[in-house]
Amino acid sequence: MLILGIDPGTAITGYGIIEKDKKILRCISYGSIETEPFLAPAERLNKLYNKLNKLLKEYQPKIVATETLYFFKNAKTAIRVSEARGVILLTAAKKKILIKEYTPLQVKINVCGYGRAEKKQVQKMVKKILNLEELPEPDDAADALAIALCAAYEIKI
Amino acid sequence: MLILGIDPGTAITGYGIIEKDKKILRCISYGSIETEPFLAPAERLNKLYNKLNKLLKEYQPKIVATETLYFFKNAKTAIRVSEARGVILLTAAKKKILIKEYTPLQVKINVCGYGRAEKKQVQKMVKKILNLEELPEPDDAADALAIALCAAYEIKI
Repeated sequence: MLILGIDPGTAITGYGIIEKDKKILRCISYGSIETEPFLAPAERLNKLYNKLNKLLKEYQPKIVATETLYFFKNAKTAIRVSEARGVILLTAAKKKILIKEYTPLQVKINVCGYGRAEKKQVQKMVKKILNLEELPEPDDAADALAIALCAAYEIKI
Repeated sequence: MLILGIDPGTAITGYGIIEKDKKILRCISYGSIETEPFLAPAERLNKLYNKLNKLLKEYQPKIVATETLYFFKNAKTAIRVSEARGVILLTAAKKKILIKEYTPLQVKINVCGYGRAEKKQVQKMVKKILNLEELPEPDDAADALAIALCAAYEIKI
């Protein structure tokens, strides 16, 4: 079963696809969807939507896991990230894919055992858990793999 | 030329369609898109997306006008409204419709001449400007008509 993890953003949205086969977890792919800053916000969302749809078509994941937003420092960033989240949720809902959501705290505790872990720690732990040859880059992709891992740990199959 | 104004929300999204023919403004339709609270957030966004698409197909507006979010008191509400905004922007972008955005302040100044106007004042002024027989209800629909009026005032045709 494939799980697509998504770390939402408008400039960069990280994605990571892992396979769960009984207790074995395997990284299938990861990367980022980037949209150019000169595009209008709506155009960036459209691009994100199209690229997400391509990923769903290519990998046909059974679960889309993403990160929730609860608290934030910068209101403007939070608004833009939430708009991207709206598009991500819509894309999965249209394909009737199961959506799992995790808070940043849950993601960090799940992969690092520590809720205040830094981005570098998340990258290192994702590399270790998925037995990768190098640190997953960009860190948005590492976060996306970490989010996918949360779903892999939670779902019993 | 038709302008679709949208006041974003997940529980209730107001919409209002006005026609601008040279200097004459006419209300074509208004109402609200409501989604049931028992639905999952992604399902509510999907419903909003489908209903918006129906409106776009039926009225073929040349402009979609919506409200921006800059400051807010309740972070949770702001996040949900932003997710809905993401879906609204996407829906318009996919149809290549011109998007105009206005702050709540701009909307109130445009229809009431006063940036701190209350919802009731907006309803009354929208009724007056568009020569409606009754106050537009719900207030989300009145807000949507007010947002459409901003675009009608701005656009020169």
